[in-house]
Amino acid sequence: MAVIHSPPQYCIALDAMGGDHGSKVTMSGAAMALKAMPELKLILVGDEAEVKAHLNNVNLNDEQLSRVEIVHSNSVVEMDDKATCILKEKKQSSVRMAAECVRGHSALGMVSMGNTGAAMVASMKVIGTLKGVGRPCLATIFPSLKKGTPTVFLDVGANIDCKAEHIAQFALMGGVYAEEVLGIQKPKIGVLSVGEEDAKGSEVTRNAATALRALDINFGGNAEGRDIWNGDFDVIACDGFVGNVVLKSSEALAESIRHGLRESLDSDILSRFGGLIARPSMKKFYKKLDYAEYGGAPLLGVKGISIIGHGRSNARAVASAIRAAVKGAKHNLTDRIQESMRQLLQVSNET
Amino acid sequence: MAVIHSPPQYCIALDAMGGDHGSKVTMSGAAMALKAMPELKLILVGDEAEVKAHLNNVNLNDEQLSRVEIVHSNSVVEMDDKATCILKEKKQSSVRMAAECVRGHSALGMVSMGNTGAAMVASMKVIGTLKGVGRPCLATIFPSLKKGTPTVFLDVGANIDCKAEHIAQFALMGGVYAEEVLGIQKPKIGVLSVGEEDAKGSEVTRNAATALRALDINFGGNAEGRDIWNGDFDVIACDGFVGNVVLKSSEALAESIRHGLRESLDSDILSRFGGLIARPSMKKFYKKLDYAEYGGAPLLGVKGISIIGHGRSNARAVASAIRAAVKGAKHNLTDRIQESMRQLLQVSNET
Repeated sequence: MAVIHSPPQYCIALDAMGGDHGSKVTMSGAAMALKAMPELKLILVGDEAEVKAHLNNVNLNDEQLSRVEIVHSNSVVEMDDKATCILKEKKQSSVRMAAECVRGHSALGMVSMGNTGAAMVASMKVIGTLKGVGRPCLATIFPSLKKGTPTVFLDVGANIDCKAEHIAQFALMGGVYAEEVLGIQKPKIGVLSVGEEDAKGSEVTRNAATALRALDINFGGNAEGRDIWNGDFDVIACDGFVGNVVLKSSEALAESIRHGLRESLDSDILSRFGGLIARPSMKKFYKKLDYAEYGGAPLLGVKGISIIGHGRSNARAVASAIRAAVKGAKHNLTDRIQESMRQLLQVSNET
Repeated sequence: MAVIHSPPQYCIALDAMGGDHGSKVTMSGAAMALKAMPELKLILVGDEAEVKAHLNNVNLNDEQLSRVEIVHSNSVVEMDDKATCILKEKKQSSVRMAAECVRGHSALGMVSMGNTGAAMVASMKVIGTLKGVGRPCLATIFPSLKKGTPTVFLDVGANIDCKAEHIAQFALMGGVYAEEVLGIQKPKIGVLSVGEEDAKGSEVTRNAATALRALDINFGGNAEGRDIWNGDFDVIACDGFVGNVVLKSSEALAESIRHGLRESLDSDILSRFGGLIARPSMKKFYKKLDYAEYGGAPLLGVKGISIIGHGRSNARAVASAIRAAVKGAKHNLTDRIQESMRQLLQVSNET
């Protein structure tokens, strides 16, 4: 008797309602992901009628449709809702119910493009925090414009006033993500500081660096602000205050430069002509800056995979986020992070 | 009998030896400043023979030369020297002797393009800290690419682990600088945080904001990372750790974008052609990003004016830094900062 081995499948729960562009765009992204990844099973969490209507318009074949399950939810967390509303008022919201799928082990991970705070609360409170993780953290994947490999930068969530052990944990979790999801071997990990010498920085950053130096990882010591963009480090960890400021100021600076250049190129006929000719190349470059390429921000340190996309995400960004979740599932991201926390604890206890 | 009123003159001490490009470039900047500002008197501190040789080559007329004095110094702080070398080994260095001119009241301010750390130590230890100032701080002037007015961003020096009172002082001192030197009336002042709501941020930033809210100033509350670039605030204060990271990461990001765009425009013949035509407009835009326009970084909170330029400064940047020092002197920057510290202390004592 011939035994047919079916390839393994990885189930991800998608908050079908989240995102500034509404469920239509999110569903287009879901369809892109289903077509690109035969190993993907998708639980679409959202208003059943709405999700079904969109499903009819995204040209999925029977095999692709067979990998889709719909879980009905009857509310949506809006962008201006409080993050904690999912704990009480909006228990039946799509983002919370996506998290419930992970908690109940029907999915290995969740993806949401909705309210970032609500997705974080759902991940932490519903899926739950891994043992040994002081605080889960949100990572962003910055493109390296010079070397071509991205840099995992974390925490950009809201972990204000971090202790050294938290930053060391962020660094390690970011390292596991870089290795398993981004495919960077032996990622070079750094602690963000104000100078490369070991003595530079605050007491917190110096102690975090000391803890990391004792581990069997590729620790590069202190990283500086410039290293966020030069590709010299694969992972850079800092507290959530600094991370939030860097993320928001970098987005604004890049946008200002793009805007300013566009205005400058519009200032006279000759420049407009030159700009027109050069536009395809410039667009190609700006694409490198585009968050959509990098699949959203992983929330690390919870008992499952959680990828939080930008509210502005287009279909391609949604598909990238789902791809990141599948990669994480394939490579046992959650177990690997748990294991790295165990090592940190062990070395900390020994020293 | 006719009384001839000679216009007031403002004397600035220039570290003639500082800067990556050597004394020649610094002297060209000095000459530009002397030509542009008849009210400027300049003490050139450096190797007398070297300074004199350069002076012969910068086409100054007799009147301009009459406003120049040379003070001989016999050593230079190199870029890789320790900042504190001026206290012991290099007491006769040009940067320390420029500071001595301010201490001894022969100059109202000093300008140096040399080792930033050494210029800071010289300002703080030789000129001395103003009464009521916990820590002098280094400000950078960021261009606003959208609104056209610059933003004073501080501290970018090395004040790690600041208390709330320090950040409040930075904010106030930055406000005085924006008003007196940049000519911004009633500058809108903010404390850098992770959200605009008053409750957002760390205990330190919230307390700094509370202290500032009690004063009769145009306080705009919390500023976010994006506000550093959108021109919504005239002054944004933060601790020196965050400031250093933002400064270095912003410089690196802007440089990466410029570099990446250039490469992209070089990738094929058509783009190269378009880029060539558009280049003058693009250059005009990049000039807006250029630190040289904004006259270096003022060190605020010392008993005199101290402007620390970028090591890379060209002659135009040197002249801008001298102009900033003269403006500060004209507008009694030092007294105005002293006065604002008094007000802060008074209100703090009342509440």
